[in-house]
Amino acid sequence: MAEATYEVLGIGNAIVDVLARTDERFLAEESLAKGSMRLIGADEAERIYGRLGPATESSGGSAANTIAGIASMGGRAAFIGKVADDQLGRIFAHDMTAIGVSFTTPPLADGAPTARCLILVTPDGERTMNTYLGAAQDLHPADIDETLVGSAAITFLEGYLWDPPLAKEAFRKAAAAAHRAGRKVALTLSDSFCVDRYRGEFLDLIRSKAIDIVLANAHELRSLYETSSLEAGLAALRQDATLAAVTNSVEGSFVVSAAGIEQVAATPVERVVDATGAGDLYAAGFLLGVARGWPLARAAALGSFAAAEVISHMGARPAERLQDLARGGGYAL
Amino acid sequence: MAEATYEVLGIGNAIVDVLARTDERFLAEESLAKGSMRLIGADEAERIYGRLGPATESSGGSAANTIAGIASMGGRAAFIGKVADDQLGRIFAHDMTAIGVSFTTPPLADGAPTARCLILVTPDGERTMNTYLGAAQDLHPADIDETLVGSAAITFLEGYLWDPPLAKEAFRKAAAAAHRAGRKVALTLSDSFCVDRYRGEFLDLIRSKAIDIVLANAHELRSLYETSSLEAGLAALRQDATLAAVTNSVEGSFVVSAAGIEQVAATPVERVVDATGAGDLYAAGFLLGVARGWPLARAAALGSFAAAEVISHMGARPAERLQDLARGGGYAL
Repeated sequence: MAEATYEVLGIGNAIVDVLARTDERFLAEESLAKGSMRLIGADEAERIYGRLGPATESSGGSAANTIAGIASMGGRAAFIGKVADDQLGRIFAHDMTAIGVSFTTPPLADGAPTARCLILVTPDGERTMNTYLGAAQDLHPADIDETLVGSAAITFLEGYLWDPPLAKEAFRKAAAAAHRAGRKVALTLSDSFCVDRYRGEFLDLIRSKAIDIVLANAHELRSLYETSSLEAGLAALRQDATLAAVTNSVEGSFVVSAAGIEQVAATPVERVVDATGAGDLYAAGFLLGVARGWPLARAAALGSFAAAEVISHMGARPAERLQDLARGGGYAL
Repeated sequence: MAEATYEVLGIGNAIVDVLARTDERFLAEESLAKGSMRLIGADEAERIYGRLGPATESSGGSAANTIAGIASMGGRAAFIGKVADDQLGRIFAHDMTAIGVSFTTPPLADGAPTARCLILVTPDGERTMNTYLGAAQDLHPADIDETLVGSAAITFLEGYLWDPPLAKEAFRKAAAAAHRAGRKVALTLSDSFCVDRYRGEFLDLIRSKAIDIVLANAHELRSLYETSSLEAGLAALRQDATLAAVTNSVEGSFVVSAAGIEQVAATPVERVVDATGAGDLYAAGFLLGVARGWPLARAAALGSFAAAEVISHMGARPAERLQDLARGGGYAL
């Protein structure tokens, strides 16, 4: 097998984040479940945006954040996702390329605008997300370049891709192409409500070994196995998955493999300013470590390190170059 | 004279900021004078943007930042400025309205896109600005609603308006309308290079009393009077201007009036993260205090308080509601 050109290729919804501080009252008035992601249409996006205070815009998207994080750590990374040919789409493309990610998916010419996610950040640092998918809906199987997929050691897919119907097909095509090329496929479960929508399909993907590496948080894992017990969820995942990493907020994370279930401490953070991107950046560190053949606990620790940076400021992507920061933290990157 | 509907009306270039961290080497390679603002065309904006790392977008514009700051302090504020009918223009309009500013200037329909400012933030927190004026060029005298101007206690104009030729006419029209209605006119000198471009005209405006209140920093003041001595500049300004406030970074500011020259201490800041907006937010506090008839030193202190908040984080506008913050700081707002 040829050496991989890319360590990780991410495929996901290409989204620009609209971040606004808000309060608990706003979430209550809008009946929003704190910490969740929900899909909204164009009209609802306009209505909620109209109610929000001043906001800042920055590139987001779950797998896209992970891939940006990997590039920020000096990893070789590529991304496939659909933006529109508009100002927000150009911002998204710029931010990927500028951090060193190969991003060549052609933008959608005549259709919906670039996807955006209205992210409400409460004073406790939690984020609640309202996503208008726009052009991301139009990620098509034809956008999956099988040669590109075959040139990446790991192809990383987000569970959110199960929402746009065409993207699901793109997802399946990419996973099959990766395996044909002898590469690995990773999946993040994305969100507990997303798991609830697609539980059977996600379990099928994992059990059929269409997925080699599973990333999840404790909420998503409990939702996947419909259990209130994290331990029961971890045990079930160990039966079903080849390799998994499960985050549990300040409690750290668990690496789940044939060798057993190993707990890894979280990197301490002085104050959680904005939890947006925490899981995405954990995935970045973990996947880069796995791609480089690190011991799994070390890969998980790098994930926690990257997550700690992103939750200490507003926004879902690193504010500093993680490669330099991680070296200072004792990681050889 | 009727009570003013608005305490301050701002007129300025309506700009979206593109903030990116950079280093001294980049400034040297591009021959950029640190801390300055320069105007660039669309092609140059594309070229520099292409060289920048990942960025975040947020509403900016000098007078617009001031007006947003006044609204954030609970002041009654309005703004006149030209955006395009595009995604960035809608972001700008949203952020003004969402903070409580009345902003009703119709967007430019078929023309250049919304103005943007590429702001390079160096590790020392200084910012260097590259502005593509776009639609802001098309601020027209017809955009100046004289009834609106007459309904504001202070009309605040930015020196940067001297760059787009039509905006200069809009500026003159607004200043005349304010005085006809018995209101005050304030001017910020904006930037030392801007002063260098329009020194004679700015001096004429001040000496002819077309301007009642001058805002400047020490660099701009020295440029205005072509002197290396801050003291000489302050003395000359006291001869020419009815009222002025001059900031001098960590040294605090000077209130210049017929009563004399009074120095007011700066509000201490733990670490300057990003100096963008410092002068704009100082102007916000000072002008709101003046509009409310506060003692001038107290108005200047409120300006320093507002500036201290904005330089302690990335971005040119308050991250927290200044009204609450200022109350906690002992200001009755």
